[in-house]
Amino acid sequence: MPTFTPVASLKGQSIAFAAQFSRADIDALIQLALDMKRHVEAGNTIDALRGLIMTPLFFEDSSRTLSSFCAAMMRLGGNVVNFKVETSSVNKGETLQDTVRTLDSYSDVLVLRHNKEEALEQAMSVATHPIMNAGNGAGEHPTQALLDTLTIHAELGAVDGITIALIGDLKKGRTVHSLLKLLTHSFSLKKVYLIAPAGLEMPAEVLKHVAADVEGRGIAIEQGCGLTPEIVADCDVLYATRLQKERFVASTADDADAVAAFEAAKAGLVIDKARLTHAKAKMIVMHPLPRVDELSTDIDDDPRAAYFREMRYGLFMRMAILFSVLS
Amino acid sequence: MPTFTPVASLKGQSIAFAAQFSRADIDALIQLALDMKRHVEAGNTIDALRGLIMTPLFFEDSSRTLSSFCAAMMRLGGNVVNFKVETSSVNKGETLQDTVRTLDSYSDVLVLRHNKEEALEQAMSVATHPIMNAGNGAGEHPTQALLDTLTIHAELGAVDGITIALIGDLKKGRTVHSLLKLLTHSFSLKKVYLIAPAGLEMPAEVLKHVAADVEGRGIAIEQGCGLTPEIVADCDVLYATRLQKERFVASTADDADAVAAFEAAKAGLVIDKARLTHAKAKMIVMHPLPRVDELSTDIDDDPRAAYFREMRYGLFMRMAILFSVLS
Amino acid sequence: MPTFTPVASLKGQSIAFAAQFSRADIDALIQLALDMKRHVEAGNTIDALRGLIMTPLFFEDSSRTLSSFCAAMMRLGGNVVNFKVETSSVNKGETLQDTVRTLDSYSDVLVLRHNKEEALEQAMSVATHPIMNAGNGAGEHPTQALLDTLTIHAELGAVDGITIALIGDLKKGRTVHSLLKLLTHSFSLKKVYLIAPAGLEMPAEVLKHVAADVEGRGIAIEQGCGLTPEIVADCDVLYATRLQKERFVASTADDADAVAAFEAAKAGLVIDKARLTHAKAKMIVMHPLPRVDELSTDIDDDPRAAYFREMRYGLFMRMAILFSVLS
Repeated sequence: MPTFTPVASLKGQSIAFAAQFSRADIDALIQLALDMKRHVEAGNTIDALRGLIMTPLFFEDSSRTLSSFCAAMMRLGGNVVNFKVETSSVNKGETLQDTVRTLDSYSDVLVLRHNKEEALEQAMSVATHPIMNAGNGAGEHPTQALLDTLTIHAELGAVDGITIALIGDLKKGRTVHSLLKLLTHSFSLKKVYLIAPAGLEMPAEVLKHVAADVEGRGIAIEQGCGLTPEIVADCDVLYATRLQKERFVASTADDADAVAAFEAAKAGLVIDKARLTHAKAKMIVMHPLPRVDELSTDIDDDPRAAYFREMRYGLFMRMAILFSVLS
Repeated sequence: MPTFTPVASLKGQSIAFAAQFSRADIDALIQLALDMKRHVEAGNTIDALRGLIMTPLFFEDSSRTLSSFCAAMMRLGGNVVNFKVETSSVNKGETLQDTVRTLDSYSDVLVLRHNKEEALEQAMSVATHPIMNAGNGAGEHPTQALLDTLTIHAELGAVDGITIALIGDLKKGRTVHSLLKLLTHSFSLKKVYLIAPAGLEMPAEVLKHVAADVEGRGIAIEQGCGLTPEIVADCDVLYATRLQKERFVASTADDADAVAAFEAAKAGLVIDKARLTHAKAKMIVMHPLPRVDELSTDIDDDPRAAYFREMRYGLFMRMAILFSVLS
Repeated sequence: MPTFTPVASLKGQSIAFAAQFSRADIDALIQLALDMKRHVEAGNTIDALRGLIMTPLFFEDSSRTLSSFCAAMMRLGGNVVNFKVETSSVNKGETLQDTVRTLDSYSDVLVLRHNKEEALEQAMSVATHPIMNAGNGAGEHPTQALLDTLTIHAELGAVDGITIALIGDLKKGRTVHSLLKLLTHSFSLKKVYLIAPAGLEMPAEVLKHVAADVEGRGIAIEQGCGLTPEIVADCDVLYATRLQKERFVASTADDADAVAAFEAAKAGLVIDKARLTHAKAKMIVMHPLPRVDELSTDIDDDPRAAYFREMRYGLFMRMAILFSVLS
């Protein structure tokens, strides 16, 4: 077995926020993930985390994040305890802190997804083992940002200098919050388009968070609500997202307006074959998935459609993360 | 560890339909399953699939199929990612194809059960790894047919030359569809009784599918709606099935009639102590389980009751299948 | 790897009742659990149960018992099949016995939790492998009693001679039933306070069960409904429990009265900072968790609050049990 080198600064650390990583960390994680990808795809196995246990604690639905974290742990030789919130003492009124303390008593690492942003801090305050933030409400989704960065690097050869458009529900989409923070913090992007229907714009606090980096690196930011042929032609990455319907409250006037705005704007934001005729030959379309109808299946066979490969990069990035945190 | 020989023709293949297997495949799978049974029951372990990952994707309830596939993978040294449809992105409107692509990105093999017959083809069209069909609507259940064939072979010494009655809901029972296809395709049965209440008969398309084999092998087929003492006395295998209630739509007149016919005919089809007095000393009662009341518990201790042993043969047949597909 | 010594009398045995253990068994389990704790906490792994499969069959919610049994099996090198009652053939009307027979066909050990007390006997009557009773209705919870005994031993240095108060819903709390039986059967306690609101007293049959041991060992038993400063001051262990709301039927007059009595008495039974001012410096507060409001978070940081450490002892006690039963 080749010797993989963990990213030393992550040892024993929780993965909480996209901005916690240095450029060196990210570069090292990308290399480690690509090394592991080559190793696994050559038919080899890794046994580095034998005897260690990961427990996911998911208060929200998940397909990709949960399954790829589990597969990553297993492909490193570790085990997964299948805790299910739905049939747990949460039903008897147990607090998040007590549930976290419980799983922390038996496990070497927890993976937490919660509908409330503050849940992450509550969990970290009582856990003695690292916590992987797999999405905290409309807050962050840092491992998604890392796998997205790996995808851009692997597909385009570099992240510095690219032009990227983040498209869709930028208000409640934690994926795009984390990605914008991570990219602007560590990479000299050329330009970022933020394309959202009215009421679904990137939150002011996120923009404020990245302001110093954006200015320091001289990154152009352009906000808009339409995905024009000019923008499509300018981009190296079109990053689409779905409306986070589950985060909107129908009874709230603001939220109802935002959903209505999304429905009205949808047709103008959908990425499909027609729209891709304006795009460069070398560029990629990304999406954290699941997609609803903002991303057409008619481009699935286009080589520029990178969203399925993006899922697979996620497996190897999460292997690199777990290996670095636990070994 | 002894060297087990995989069935080479299955390597990398999906298990989709009962009729995909040659007689040589089936004979080899039976030998392999029995070899593995001996090996495991002697207290030995097998490590052949270390580092490989299976993900079940079950859109319908399951006890035996799901648990035995999981146990089979683990007894071969492999791992299982516990994907749950109920807490997945299926709730956010993700299509079957996208969900299959996701799990296919992280796994070496998928096991699919779905309420719609066409789901299997849809999944296979996008997967890059083998898919085990664990039941597609009222369509097929090929691994059940294989384990049933193993059970007959192991219990009676041979499958050629037997007389078997398939009893109950032959319309929607995918188990009996697959078993009839597999048996008539590869074995020279003496006679097959198809015993079903009115409206629940074996579908015409299944009969058409097996017609050439039935004629070529000179297999007698007799259809009826009553399980007479003469039939019981004639059979080497009584294969009972429950009414597939979940596949009938109460609001449809045809379906309502069929369910009513089943309820009326039930008493005449139940296999119990009284009925078994007519049976041969060397014969077996089989059932894919779960049973409701078509199979009485009063014969559980009769040595001819093979349905519990049938479950255990299922474990070893699925080990033989996974080993052949993945090693 | 050091050689761990299994408790020989448990080999192949079901863990059904608290009173099944001899004092020698308990002492040996405690030593084994502490040995494993040291070994694991030094960063070592154990591979003793490689190739073996445990299947949990939980008809009631669980966090600690289920997760720690799974983690224990995995930390011994074994595997866990994740059977879910909610998506099983139980929905098609399968009996408990048939479901147990199914999982017993694939597994080396089952872990059963059921809302009905008689379920345990029904399961044991058809299983060919050992069953771990993880709670049978208001009956017993023997592995909890063992881990509680380990906790007392590890925290206080001895179990003989202690004074303990069992507090709360002593009627439906299976934890306290098992703990009282196990302690009085094997240890010369000084005194046991049974503190419960009216209608929630320790059942007469449990008291009758322990009567001979209590008299033979000269254990003082005092029943009451208030947790006075004198009692708090006298105790080495305050063992609090929550109201087992899910076991009460609102429509029953008796049950409604009991719940009302609990609500009225609750304030007088809660263990908090104020009440602990009366306690000795060397004593512990225990709770099987989850807690609702009978145990205040304001003592979580008090070194006498042993309930979080109690969870972790549970992991190692269940490792000791599984290792002894299966190796």
